[in-house]
Amino acid sequence: MGFKGEQHPGVQPSTDNTAGFCLNHTMLRIKNPDTALAFYSRVFGMQLLRRLDFQEMQFSLYFLANLQGDEEVPEDKEKRTVWTFKQRGLLELTHNWGSEHQKEFSYHDGNAEPQGFGHICFNVPNLEAAEKWFDENNVSFIKRSDQGKMKNVIFVRDVDGYWIEVVQADLLAKLGD
Amino acid sequence: MGFKGEQHPGVQPSTDNTAGFCLNHTMLRIKNPDTALAFYSRVFGMQLLRRLDFQEMQFSLYFLANLQGDEEVPEDKEKRTVWTFKQRGLLELTHNWGSEHQKEFSYHDGNAEPQGFGHICFNVPNLEAAEKWFDENNVSFIKRSDQGKMKNVIFVRDVDGYWIEVVQADLLAKLGD
Repeated sequence: MGFKGEQHPGVQPSTDNTAGFCLNHTMLRIKNPDTALAFYSRVFGMQLLRRLDFQEMQFSLYFLANLQGDEEVPEDKEKRTVWTFKQRGLLELTHNWGSEHQKEFSYHDGNAEPQGFGHICFNVPNLEAAEKWFDENNVSFIKRSDQGKMKNVIFVRDVDGYWIEVVQADLLAKLGD
Repeated sequence: MGFKGEQHPGVQPSTDNTAGFCLNHTMLRIKNPDTALAFYSRVFGMQLLRRLDFQEMQFSLYFLANLQGDEEVPEDKEKRTVWTFKQRGLLELTHNWGSEHQKEFSYHDGNAEPQGFGHICFNVPNLEAAEKWFDENNVSFIKRSDQGKMKNVIFVRDVDGYWIEVVQADLLAKLGD
């Protein structure tokens, strides 16, 4: 492999101490698993790899990914839990039991103040088809592909209000200055 | 492939409309790229795949991943941008220029109120060695592996205060009820 990373003040070479480290998931809290799972499974095509319940602490975790069809996912639940934590780039949704019954309850999207977390981003094979698909599913748009300064970049909201960026990688070659 | 996802109220089968969808990245805003890049490159072994600057809008994006060494990463910048957006599970750090000079400025971690985003999570080959490595690098712990109700799960803070979960997948087979 030739490319070992861009240089920038701060960047340090990796060492053996971090060999095998892998970014497994991003966790977002959700108000209602029924609507969040419907959204991510139907609109973004994700599969539910594993649900883990914690009775004493009154919450459940849902691990999601876009399976490509060639993965050997274990049917056995304990083996599947281990397999899940070995994957790259999953979405973990956390449901604190009962929030779905609190009428005024909602989570903070990180883009309104106070800011922090921004969004998750999906790459899709065809941005135009994806935009049409989102319209067919009444998805709430923040920005369509032809709006704003960043063309060919879509932003939508999930059912909890979190921002989702949607791109088609091969349209972005000239992104940035 | 046998396993097609767990069932749960809300979960729907995926359709051809979402074929090829892939979770590309999670975006977190950072105050100072020098310290954030030092942290993620040294302590978590990530490589900087691509930096994109936006002069007019006064911000920069940094895309990071743990390269395994066998990827064919293009040296050509435009090709590398496209390659980057085709990957799975990257970390995108956004730097709004000038925040590093504002003494009192900080981002919201999503775990203090108002809550929303929770954390990112790394899987590591050896949790005990990782804990020692974090101590050697003066990383701030929220929870060590032997603390709290979830054993074998570490939580640390990054330099902006975002929570990072660290696990060793094969220790988690019996996680959950």
